[in-house]
Amino acid sequence: MRTRRQILDAAGVLFAVLGYKTATVVDLLAHSGVTKGAFYFHFSSKEDVARALFKEQSMEQDLVAPQKFKLQEIVDGHLVLTSKLRNGARERGCFRLCLEQGLDEELRRSWLLERVVFNQKLLTAAREQGELAAHVSVRETAEFLVSACMGLQLMSQTVIDDADTGMGRRIALLLRNVMSVIAIPDVYAELDIRQDRGIQLLET
Amino acid sequence: MRTRRQILDAAGVLFAVLGYKTATVVDLLAHSGVTKGAFYFHFSSKEDVARALFKEQSMEQDLVAPQKFKLQEIVDGHLVLTSKLRNGARERGCFRLCLEQGLDEELRRSWLLERVVFNQKLLTAAREQGELAAHVSVRETAEFLVSACMGLQLMSQTVIDDADTGMGRRIALLLRNVMSVIAIPDVYAELDIRQDRGIQLLET
Repeated sequence: MRTRRQILDAAGVLFAVLGYKTATVVDLLAHSGVTKGAFYFHFSSKEDVARALFKEQSMEQDLVAPQKFKLQEIVDGHLVLTSKLRNGARERGCFRLCLEQGLDEELRRSWLLERVVFNQKLLTAAREQGELAAHVSVRETAEFLVSACMGLQLMSQTVIDDADTGMGRRIALLLRNVMSVIAIPDVYAELDIRQDRGIQLLET
Repeated sequence: MRTRRQILDAAGVLFAVLGYKTATVVDLLAHSGVTKGAFYFHFSSKEDVARALFKEQSMEQDLVAPQKFKLQEIVDGHLVLTSKLRNGARERGCFRLCLEQGLDEELRRSWLLERVVFNQKLLTAAREQGELAAHVSVRETAEFLVSACMGLQLMSQTVIDDADTGMGRRIALLLRNVMSVIAIPDVYAELDIRQDRGIQLLET
């Protein structure tokens, strides 16, 4: 399992910095310090590594602690992901993969749609608990959240070049914008959308 | 000028479909029906064509008719752009260029920052006219609008594959979300954020 982790960590870094297309299996071996034999024991190809990276990220999404409001869980998931993006190579690698058009369309599509579905489930639960305003479309809001996150990451990483410091602020703004529109006022008033909540959640 | 337009139209299509990296000058010649000599009379390289495409898009941004509220002008600019993306090859080409990481970083960055600055100017004017709520940061809102647009386009074009029908709906949702948060209630109540306003504005 340690070898596997070494490979995935190296893949995160290389995909984030070089991009999926440019990074090779040879690069992965050099960066992870893993032998060719050990690599092929765990993975069949570079694509296989990318798939594992995506899968792992998807599973981690579920790991937010239950809260009084489902909308708070959506907020927490986003804040935690953003904190991870700040330091986590794997998360950065995944996001870069998602922004590369023409590469592994199916993989990317399925990962993003999975994120949409994940948000949709939480929003549906929020609706059942009476947290959402009547006019809100669950599907559209879920798509909007995932799309806007991708756009913010794109902007932070490549245009403004302050992903380290700016992304948390931007995601918090996104969440405040969206929640103030979709939540009923009583719920919105109780939501905690502070930027540093993500870091606190990761530490506990 | 007709030759120039033919080349830019072809570039829009080819950049949108193949991507900037894959499309070649030979492709541009074949698709535009322009001779090599005519091409190099107007442009020095593929990069030069991309730059012209970006520049043209930036200039077009300014062409929204003045409205009672500056926020309505921001809404109109976005709705018009979205309508154009539906049918306009050049606009699609530009957006695809913006989503390709690692290619022409400087060009892409400057175009996106230009869009941020453009929105910032309108938002500043909106503030001076008393349209914005006190808590609103003009810079952050401008960045947010541009980022979210990119994310929505990414999602519509490549993940959900309904850029033709879905983008207008998504942009209208984005604008309603943002405007309901940043505008004072009296202004928000008067804004027209219907999806088909963009088409109407293009036709007049």
